[in-house]
Amino acid sequence: MGSLDQVHMSRTNQELGFKLQNRRSSFCLAVVLFIAAAIGLAVGLLLGRFALCTESVDPASKSRGGLQQVGNTSISQQVMAAVDAGRMEETLRQLSLKPHIAGQENDAVLARLVKDRFRQSGLHVQTTPYDVLLSYPAGTNSVRLVAADGTIIYDAVRDESDVTTRPDVVQPFHAYSPSGLVEGQVVYVGYGRVEDYTVLAGYGVDVTGHVVLVKYGKIFRGDKVEIAASHGAVGVLMYTDPADYTGWRAGDPRVYPDTWWMPPTGAQRGTVMSGQGDPSTPGLAANNLAYRRTDNLTTPTIPSQPIGYGAAYNILKQLSGAVAPTTWSGGLNITYRLGPGFLNSTWKLQLNVTNTNTRRKIENVFGIIEGEEEPDRYVLFGNHRDAWIYGAIDPSSGTAVMLEVARVMGELVQSGKWRPRRSIVFCSWGAEEFGLIGSTEWVEQYVAVLRERAVAYINVDLAVQGNDTLRALATPLMLDVLFEACKQVPNPDPAEVAAGRQTVYDTWYHVTPHNDVPATSGLGSGSDYAPLLQQAGVTSVDLRYSYDRKKYDISSYALYHTEYETFQLVKNHFDRDFQYHAAVAKVCGELLLSLADSLLLPFNLTTFALGLELLRATLERDHGPKLRVKLDNFDLLASVTKNFTADVANFESRRRLVDTSRALAVRALNDQMLLLEKAFLRPEGLPLRPLKKHVIYAENANDGYAGSSFPGLVELLFQIDEHPERWTTVKQHFSAILQTIQSAGATLRDVTSFMSESL
Amino acid sequence: MGSLDQVHMSRTNQELGFKLQNRRSSFCLAVVLFIAAAIGLAVGLLLGRFALCTESVDPASKSRGGLQQVGNTSISQQVMAAVDAGRMEETLRQLSLKPHIAGQENDAVLARLVKDRFRQSGLHVQTTPYDVLLSYPAGTNSVRLVAADGTIIYDAVRDESDVTTRPDVVQPFHAYSPSGLVEGQVVYVGYGRVEDYTVLAGYGVDVTGHVVLVKYGKIFRGDKVEIAASHGAVGVLMYTDPADYTGWRAGDPRVYPDTWWMPPTGAQRGTVMSGQGDPSTPGLAANNLAYRRTDNLTTPTIPSQPIGYGAAYNILKQLSGAVAPTTWSGGLNITYRLGPGFLNSTWKLQLNVTNTNTRRKIENVFGIIEGEEEPDRYVLFGNHRDAWIYGAIDPSSGTAVMLEVARVMGELVQSGKWRPRRSIVFCSWGAEEFGLIGSTEWVEQYVAVLRERAVAYINVDLAVQGNDTLRALATPLMLDVLFEACKQVPNPDPAEVAAGRQTVYDTWYHVTPHNDVPATSGLGSGSDYAPLLQQAGVTSVDLRYSYDRKKYDISSYALYHTEYETFQLVKNHFDRDFQYHAAVAKVCGELLLSLADSLLLPFNLTTFALGLELLRATLERDHGPKLRVKLDNFDLLASVTKNFTADVANFESRRRLVDTSRALAVRALNDQMLLLEKAFLRPEGLPLRPLKKHVIYAENANDGYAGSSFPGLVELLFQIDEHPERWTTVKQHFSAILQTIQSAGATLRDVTSFMSESL
Repeated sequence: MGSLDQVHMSRTNQELGFKLQNRRSSFCLAVVLFIAAAIGLAVGLLLGRFALCTESVDPASKSRGGLQQVGNTSISQQVMAAVDAGRMEETLRQLSLKPHIAGQENDAVLARLVKDRFRQSGLHVQTTPYDVLLSYPAGTNSVRLVAADGTIIYDAVRDESDVTTRPDVVQPFHAYSPSGLVEGQVVYVGYGRVEDYTVLAGYGVDVTGHVVLVKYGKIFRGDKVEIAASHGAVGVLMYTDPADYTGWRAGDPRVYPDTWWMPPTGAQRGTVMSGQGDPSTPGLAANNLAYRRTDNLTTPTIPSQPIGYGAAYNILKQLSGAVAPTTWSGGLNITYRLGPGFLNSTWKLQLNVTNTNTRRKIENVFGIIEGEEEPDRYVLFGNHRDAWIYGAIDPSSGTAVMLEVARVMGELVQSGKWRPRRSIVFCSWGAEEFGLIGSTEWVEQYVAVLRERAVAYINVDLAVQGNDTLRALATPLMLDVLFEACKQVPNPDPAEVAAGRQTVYDTWYHVTPHNDVPATSGLGSGSDYAPLLQQAGVTSVDLRYSYDRKKYDISSYALYHTEYETFQLVKNHFDRDFQYHAAVAKVCGELLLSLADSLLLPFNLTTFALGLELLRATLERDHGPKLRVKLDNFDLLASVTKNFTADVANFESRRRLVDTSRALAVRALNDQMLLLEKAFLRPEGLPLRPLKKHVIYAENANDGYAGSSFPGLVELLFQIDEHPERWTTVKQHFSAILQTIQSAGATLRDVTSFMSESL
Repeated sequence: MGSLDQVHMSRTNQELGFKLQNRRSSFCLAVVLFIAAAIGLAVGLLLGRFALCTESVDPASKSRGGLQQVGNTSISQQVMAAVDAGRMEETLRQLSLKPHIAGQENDAVLARLVKDRFRQSGLHVQTTPYDVLLSYPAGTNSVRLVAADGTIIYDAVRDESDVTTRPDVVQPFHAYSPSGLVEGQVVYVGYGRVEDYTVLAGYGVDVTGHVVLVKYGKIFRGDKVEIAASHGAVGVLMYTDPADYTGWRAGDPRVYPDTWWMPPTGAQRGTVMSGQGDPSTPGLAANNLAYRRTDNLTTPTIPSQPIGYGAAYNILKQLSGAVAPTTWSGGLNITYRLGPGFLNSTWKLQLNVTNTNTRRKIENVFGIIEGEEEPDRYVLFGNHRDAWIYGAIDPSSGTAVMLEVARVMGELVQSGKWRPRRSIVFCSWGAEEFGLIGSTEWVEQYVAVLRERAVAYINVDLAVQGNDTLRALATPLMLDVLFEACKQVPNPDPAEVAAGRQTVYDTWYHVTPHNDVPATSGLGSGSDYAPLLQQAGVTSVDLRYSYDRKKYDISSYALYHTEYETFQLVKNHFDRDFQYHAAVAKVCGELLLSLADSLLLPFNLTTFALGLELLRATLERDHGPKLRVKLDNFDLLASVTKNFTADVANFESRRRLVDTSRALAVRALNDQMLLLEKAFLRPEGLPLRPLKKHVIYAENANDGYAGSSFPGLVELLFQIDEHPERWTTVKQHFSAILQTIQSAGATLRDVTSFMSESL
């Protein structure tokens, strides 16, 4: 998983609140002043923190004769110096040699490889196997135009070359699509978002009983299928339009292997399950103790199939009906029409999906460095291991980085030079591509442990999808520590260095500046951070090096989830010397050191409060007038947010004054920071999604890739005029949000004065 | 609330597993051996702990020059010596001078009194007000026999004398009974349990459309109303039969004020709401942020009214129909008949209930002693403040004890002689009688704080309901520390001392021995421990001095919830010199000292594992054959329980070996113990009761007073043959239980090896 980034850029920056559009001037001015003040405060706090930290060494570690480092740059320099680009190149070559789809032999081979590497690096290894429901094609999936007499006019799939030559390369398919033979007319639905069906209705086109042809892009493919089914479609064809996946907009006609652009044969595989985790064991870990559903699975109800734009061209050009809206046109040299029906009215589209669900063993592999002083506090660094095919970008570029960071840190520990204050846990997840399955099952099994002990989670799904700049999704608590890490890492791009931008941070800020810091986005459910954040409340960040998403208006890196994600692609088109892999490894190393070694956790709570305040302002802007009419307590959101900000300010004051020689006083403050994100979870979950528990952010209900703020509320408000009965739930949930914020503020107060009499 | 103890004795001892009946001999032998071995181990561990603790002093406290006591008996002796029986007598006289029902003026007066006392004792005071829905009679509730022409043959209520003379004494009523005028025939339903309706059906008697006359006793009154409504009754009369509330069985005809037995005029007030907390804000704290329901309240649907046995006599003796089963007869000198219908067939029963729900302010008051080393760890000691009338037993005897313990400890702190390692929080709850409202709202508001920081909760609803022996309800983790406390407290009964029983423990064990320790029972929802245990996972104990429940086969102390719960009752019949109050205060003081001052928390996890193993054996005995047929994984319960026991053994080994000079290592072990109970909560709650979250114990679904083991499962299995569709939920929930136990075991493991590959 893990793409569609620029979509985030355009919308979730707003939602996370770091950009406000359509703002009215006076309100805007206040917000900007507030931001400026808060950033000033944040910088002051960071300075304060580092000043404090360099002064203070845990006396307990002294007494143990340990090598506890706090604010010691020596270890940081040793980590940076030890990161070896050549090793990562060799690791990536090895990882991407064979296809390694989850649940099959080579996935198990790579699990052993990861275990061996962790062991060689001196890490303590643990594994968690699960038996989960996966999905593979059982026969040959086909997409055909057929004449009335059954003659096959056109046969669309199996265009990718390796599919026909290598039995271990899985043909294009949508995991968890039900099997089925569907015949019918085709309707072109653009990107297939809810609003696209509204446009279609304006043309008088109804998809009921038809197969929809939908472009990849903008939203998560599983949501496209769910939306199609909810509108009555009987099948889905999904293709990658050249406008979104080639150099078409840039006027570059070349494709892979000459460039990193998509050839007409490429079809994006992927899961179409909207839920997360094993679909037969929602809420339970899929081990031998699990009850397994045989019906009511969280999987789609209509068949769907991905195709290349070569195939889509052959279908689209035969389509009759009204000409599609201009904005629906793509990069194919045809007139895009809506259908339903073909120019030859006797033709039909025949979609045959052979996928079957099957129980397979998957495995997570963990490499653990035990902390010296607080082994019961975990800093997690994870990457998934399974790929649709060779996976040289997704996920193996990330795996190469993770293994390298584990090697470097493991060897430092083995040499006796260093051991972190807290434990560091490297996580190699299984079956992420099918729906974050390995990570979700693990969280379901160990949430009682993680909720109490997990400090933070760093996710690197894929490490390098370009060589322009870093891009990050993050919870607000992680922002400052992330920025600081990036300021420490030398710029891997000589041209950028020549232009005066010495660090990863400098280029990042240069390419996407936003209110004096680099732009970031919120976390959706595009990768394994989702269960950690949503079910265990672990504050998280997702990192990669990327193409310039302002320069290329594409929906993801073009070859995403095709057989063209090869070692050669990475080597020839993205990272010849693996310096970008090295840069990501160094950023992760810095992050891990900061999170695992700082005496006081390096979280900036002021940024969190600022983020909350801006989320509130966004809610006010987008839904305030409507909510204020129905909710007589709507303005209390501003009050509780203000109180929360005051609680944060008081906390930060106490943090500055803490006697750092008192181990238990420091631990108590750290516990308050560690548990803050957790305080935003509601045990009963969101009203329409009980397994999503964070009331402030989750993925967007109509696009699993994208983040959403106040997700339970926004989801209820979506098209609420058609569902007025939801207002009661809106009122209840709004009240739950107010009380959650109030309660979270209470967790930050002086521990013997945590009760507030009233607002 | 808070009575019906001997019912617990007869059933929940089994459920908590400290007695096994109907056992087969070989299995029994194994269990007995296991118990013996575990008790041996437990004793060894206790010895080990005390040995460890006296050796070890937290170096941090030394370095602070604090007066931290660990295993120092001097503070314990000072607390015992300072407990002043005369002060408690005076306090109780003051507290019980006027009626102090929740939500009315004198409740607020007593809240101020408690605040003042806490402040005088040097405690830090916090309060949490809530606006909640309470229920009072708006006019005169009446129960009448009327002739066909409307003539009143008999008028039953307002028998208690003070009701007619003092406007501040609330007439007998059932809180949250809806108002309504009901006329009809009467059916006598015995205790009104589910099984009693089965017996009635055997007589061909259907209660549909009739008013049921039900005896108090055996189960919670709210459940009696709910069960009656579910069988079609239109109203409920509830009376206290002499067999259950007088000296009738003992052949003693005297009543209050000559003895502590119930006069015919006494009617037991009480709530009939089955849920807990403000019925208009389930799941939310009832503050200004709460959404308030106006329908779907968690309150009864049919009117009900309590009456005395004087009134019941006049109704029962007029009843026609079949003679009731012998076991349904009580202490009235009549032939008990079932009805429906009266001897004079033109008569009808007319029940008029005038109660109305009304929003009132209630308040919890907290007095806090800040801990020296771990102020962010709370040992809670709570008692409710509101009473139905004078409340000299329930709850003011408990309030007198709590205020005295707070005074003694507060003065020790003020004198500079002592400050506890952890914080101690004294809690004075509001509106407990209406349904644990103050405590539930508080937990709903601060669960994020309590889940992480609350070490344990000691509840004293009423302190003295007799002078024979202590009685306790407790979670298994609390048992050992409770027994140890009771061994330190001198016996308040000179006759017992003369008989060689020197301590509170000695008499308790003498009166109710059970497997080498005093008998205890599990926690239902009879008092404020319920929300703390069920929603925040705080391990809890409920204490009182009691009559001998083997000698008196009564359903509660007789005058429970009547106007006869006066200071004179306590003084003249239970505790002339307040030595039993003093004994309870000393036990609580010892408990608080042990929980708040021990370097390592004094929880015996082996007892917990033993308790779990015996709960499993009880489930096996009661439901094993049936479950084994339907659940192919039933035997895995034995496996996970065994693994949990092994995890506990490993934990205890690590605890013995911990370097107690390392503050953070000690804290980590304490965190594991603190969080163990919490690991047994499922965020989604029990299948049929989402606000009850503990999968191992909760109150019995058909009797809110009584505890139940594996409550979600047992509730689903109740009459499952009539609901076969529940089996799917049974399977899912059983799986959740297995995974919860496994996951709880993981929380106890070495923190860097918490994952188990498979069972």
